[in-house]
Amino acid sequence: MWRYDPPLRDMRFVIDEVLGAPAAWPAMAGFEELDSDMSAAVLEEAGRFAAEILAPTNGPGDLEGCTWQDGEVRTPAGYKAAYQAFVDGGWPALACDPACGGQGLPQLLNAALFEMLVSANHAWTMYPGLLHGAYEVLHQHAQGWLRDTYLPKVTSGEWLSTMCLTESHAGSDLGLLRTRAVPQADGSYAITGNKIFISGGDQDMTPNIVHLVLARLPDAPPGTKGISLFLCPKFLPDGTRNAARCDSIEKKMGLKGSATSVMSFDGATGWLLGEPHRGLQAMFLMMNAARLHVAMQGLGHLEAATQNALSYAAERVQSRSPSKPAGAPAAAADAIIHHPSLRRQLWTLQARTEAARVLCYWTAQALDDEQAHADPAARAAAGARATLLTPVLKAMMTDYGHYGADRALGIWGGHGYIHEYGIEQLVRDSRIALIYEGTNEIQAIDLVLRKLMPDGGAKLRELLDWAAAQCEGSAHAAAARAQLQAVAEAVSALQADAAADPELPFRAADDLLFAVGEALLGAAWARTDAVAAAALATGRGDAAFYQRKQQLARFHFDWLAGELTHRLRGVAAARAPLPFLA
Amino acid sequence: MWRYDPPLRDMRFVIDEVLGAPAAWPAMAGFEELDSDMSAAVLEEAGRFAAEILAPTNGPGDLEGCTWQDGEVRTPAGYKAAYQAFVDGGWPALACDPACGGQGLPQLLNAALFEMLVSANHAWTMYPGLLHGAYEVLHQHAQGWLRDTYLPKVTSGEWLSTMCLTESHAGSDLGLLRTRAVPQADGSYAITGNKIFISGGDQDMTPNIVHLVLARLPDAPPGTKGISLFLCPKFLPDGTRNAARCDSIEKKMGLKGSATSVMSFDGATGWLLGEPHRGLQAMFLMMNAARLHVAMQGLGHLEAATQNALSYAAERVQSRSPSKPAGAPAAAADAIIHHPSLRRQLWTLQARTEAARVLCYWTAQALDDEQAHADPAARAAAGARATLLTPVLKAMMTDYGHYGADRALGIWGGHGYIHEYGIEQLVRDSRIALIYEGTNEIQAIDLVLRKLMPDGGAKLRELLDWAAAQCEGSAHAAAARAQLQAVAEAVSALQADAAADPELPFRAADDLLFAVGEALLGAAWARTDAVAAAALATGRGDAAFYQRKQQLARFHFDWLAGELTHRLRGVAAARAPLPFLA
Repeated sequence: MWRYDPPLRDMRFVIDEVLGAPAAWPAMAGFEELDSDMSAAVLEEAGRFAAEILAPTNGPGDLEGCTWQDGEVRTPAGYKAAYQAFVDGGWPALACDPACGGQGLPQLLNAALFEMLVSANHAWTMYPGLLHGAYEVLHQHAQGWLRDTYLPKVTSGEWLSTMCLTESHAGSDLGLLRTRAVPQADGSYAITGNKIFISGGDQDMTPNIVHLVLARLPDAPPGTKGISLFLCPKFLPDGTRNAARCDSIEKKMGLKGSATSVMSFDGATGWLLGEPHRGLQAMFLMMNAARLHVAMQGLGHLEAATQNALSYAAERVQSRSPSKPAGAPAAAADAIIHHPSLRRQLWTLQARTEAARVLCYWTAQALDDEQAHADPAARAAAGARATLLTPVLKAMMTDYGHYGADRALGIWGGHGYIHEYGIEQLVRDSRIALIYEGTNEIQAIDLVLRKLMPDGGAKLRELLDWAAAQCEGSAHAAAARAQLQAVAEAVSALQADAAADPELPFRAADDLLFAVGEALLGAAWARTDAVAAAALATGRGDAAFYQRKQQLARFHFDWLAGELTHRLRGVAAARAPLPFLA
Repeated sequence: MWRYDPPLRDMRFVIDEVLGAPAAWPAMAGFEELDSDMSAAVLEEAGRFAAEILAPTNGPGDLEGCTWQDGEVRTPAGYKAAYQAFVDGGWPALACDPACGGQGLPQLLNAALFEMLVSANHAWTMYPGLLHGAYEVLHQHAQGWLRDTYLPKVTSGEWLSTMCLTESHAGSDLGLLRTRAVPQADGSYAITGNKIFISGGDQDMTPNIVHLVLARLPDAPPGTKGISLFLCPKFLPDGTRNAARCDSIEKKMGLKGSATSVMSFDGATGWLLGEPHRGLQAMFLMMNAARLHVAMQGLGHLEAATQNALSYAAERVQSRSPSKPAGAPAAAADAIIHHPSLRRQLWTLQARTEAARVLCYWTAQALDDEQAHADPAARAAAGARATLLTPVLKAMMTDYGHYGADRALGIWGGHGYIHEYGIEQLVRDSRIALIYEGTNEIQAIDLVLRKLMPDGGAKLRELLDWAAAQCEGSAHAAAARAQLQAVAEAVSALQADAAADPELPFRAADDLLFAVGEALLGAAWARTDAVAAAALATGRGDAAFYQRKQQLARFHFDWLAGELTHRLRGVAAARAPLPFLA
């Protein structure tokens, strides 16, 4: 009964009309040939893969899970075939450099691809989910034979990759990690140590696996400034098995089709990537892309929850609605979509999902602008915007994705608790996104302490001004701009009070991140409303689509604007003492 | 690593000092002999059962789950032995009539027992969870040989019981149910139909199962006024197997040790309980007790999440805290309990849990007062209070239990997602409590539409006045009373506006229920603060315990009071239009 219907109409609306991306592509280096129809064709094909090949493996893969025997992992039925189809379709290389075998398409389309993959099957998407980041690391840091051997296979997806960071005592705090790498006479390194939570640490989908491993050289200083990055394959170039082993896989809440591995490196052969002791910087290349990718997961979860909740609520008949919907028959009961409490939840889900898509795609577009915009000033501004948006979206989208799915489960009543209806799996699968690639609490500290406080809020001001400009032409422009202004004032006040209370920004960080995010959702709705109004004014058709967008924009400001006020009150409340626990 | 440490000190504080129950017992019919030491001894023994016998079956039972073969269910290892120990200890009969083999102790102690059982193993507790309700139904409605045969076995727990209400097309709306009962010549009825979501529909823990089944007589009017209640055992009095069969068990998100059964009745023999066509009224006897029982589940979940999060956060060392805790060594990293974001979450969990216990126990005490208070006016007032408190607590406690556990999972970071740390199971197990025994949305409608609106808020006024009186002697009395007053005003305003917009109370119901609940939490903290202040003034020792209570009270009003404001804004926002979905 769980289904996935790619929201192609809405994606095209956001890409073409809200972002105006096709109008910009002709002036961007590398995208000169791209237009709206080509972009729509790519998304349609991606949607077909997600809906027809991937989605059918989602529920069964959760029940079957991965199995581990003697260091080897078997993924659920259908996973390997789906991955082969994915590689054959050229999807891993979508946004990679054509000089390395990539297709050179915008990050924006890659983001839309990953939204669909996660909606269809998040567990499966864990395997290719790290590929683009690994490509970025190799593209920038691998040289000579190492580059020739590994970059093409990772670009094409022929070999999958892992990120080996976490150790049992070193999760959020990588400075504590202990894995060591000893230089060998042949220029390689012998890597020894244990890693946990390694997604795809072993799998049966590709003939080799390229592990990217953080470890310490013998002369490394302590802490995060003594960590280097190594490439350590499952099979060495001569075909022998490397001493990198999957010792077990975790029993988890969800993502049961994704093999979360405990890895041991027992003098495994690896090669240095980038400079010694600068592995964390190299890895952060990968991490920043990964954080936006995780934000897209939140959007994918929201979309999947919303469309399934809507269709279930339209079919399930239970009790009379207090206000009879127009044209409803005089039956003993109505479809539950008409009940006020559920109607409110369904509008909330839709309003969240559609504004989340605008924010996520805006950010992906900023990454493209940063790379390929003709104007250097626009490149710099887009880069600064993406830097600020990334932690906000990583935390807010994953939070709204998971808690949105969890609230949506209630729409199914008792059936929501049963596996075959699909929503309970989504709730379980989506929970990890709040944690990995930097917990949401760490995103908030990153935003507030590293990005807002040091420059006195100047970069935030630029982001908010940009967002305020997006509201032009909407009936909600004044409301949306007042929200953006309220956030700017809260940051100034926080800055002032932090002088006497340096812990204050840490206490306020979570609420402040969500306040920024809520104000941006308002801007997304104002922009959407203005675009819809302009489309309706042309009378070019599809009026129901644009009228519904305007209804949702109004719903956002009527019903959901209180979230921002609540978050700002939380920021204010953080002035209160917060005693240490005994 | 997951553990359960019964919060006996806090339970005794609430029962003895906040509620003053032991001081009242001597004047209450049936409790004359009971005192504080006896009550503490009962709870200590119950805590030992929960912690030592029940808790060890919780994690393994989740992994093993129930198995079904040929209509018979096998429960996880240890479940049957734990149940035998539970029956041998006399726990099922704790609050039952001594004339029927019960121990005649207060509902208050039974509530505390069930809080502990749920904290230790919610899935197992599903089996005896319905016993007291079944006892109430039989105690009131079973006569003659039916009473003699079934009441003693249900009172003692020798036979377990089920509630067979739901059908696949009739969940929240029981009026749609189709199971039918045809009178037989011998005075019995032949019951035919299918039921779903039957907890303990089959199990291997007791030699017989007493199904309480809702069905329609041949002459039944349609809707809820044509439903009758039947007793239908797995084995008939002559030992033959009845035609009531467990066809399968559900694959669920959680509670995997609890057999959620699909049942078919194929001309099964049953006997009428109570009047024809009045089965729902008889069942609601059971449902009301069940709703408070479900509220206790939310408290049990909160307690388990809170105590485990606190102990994990005290042990896990990761990164430096921005403010160094007093006396912390100059280490590379601090215990995460000191990090501001987690400290705030941990205080929130504690503040919620301890006030939730006050509210739940207050309500259980009201049930005892309703039965056994010497003053008829006090009996009536207590009954009215319990009636209003039950839907509020059912919805709020289960919501805070589940979402509190889900937020707490983040404290474990990536480990929270792994089964062996325990918290992910708690998140899964706790989700169903928002749904069963009337979804939380239905609780809100019940509260607002059936209990607040019809009498113009008069009963609510009594509840709020009672709560305001509880605040006497606290430094927070004025703040708590202002909150209670704000809720009263919101209800009056809603009443006034509902005249022109009859759907309005339905749109506002969810927020209004939580506003009432938040105001009551404030009253619970004011009362706790006043009791702690009085205890400290006597200088009788245990000062750290009472000082911590006062810190938590202050934390509630500093950090959490905004929740009430947010809910009241939600009630106000519900004036906005909420379009029908296409």
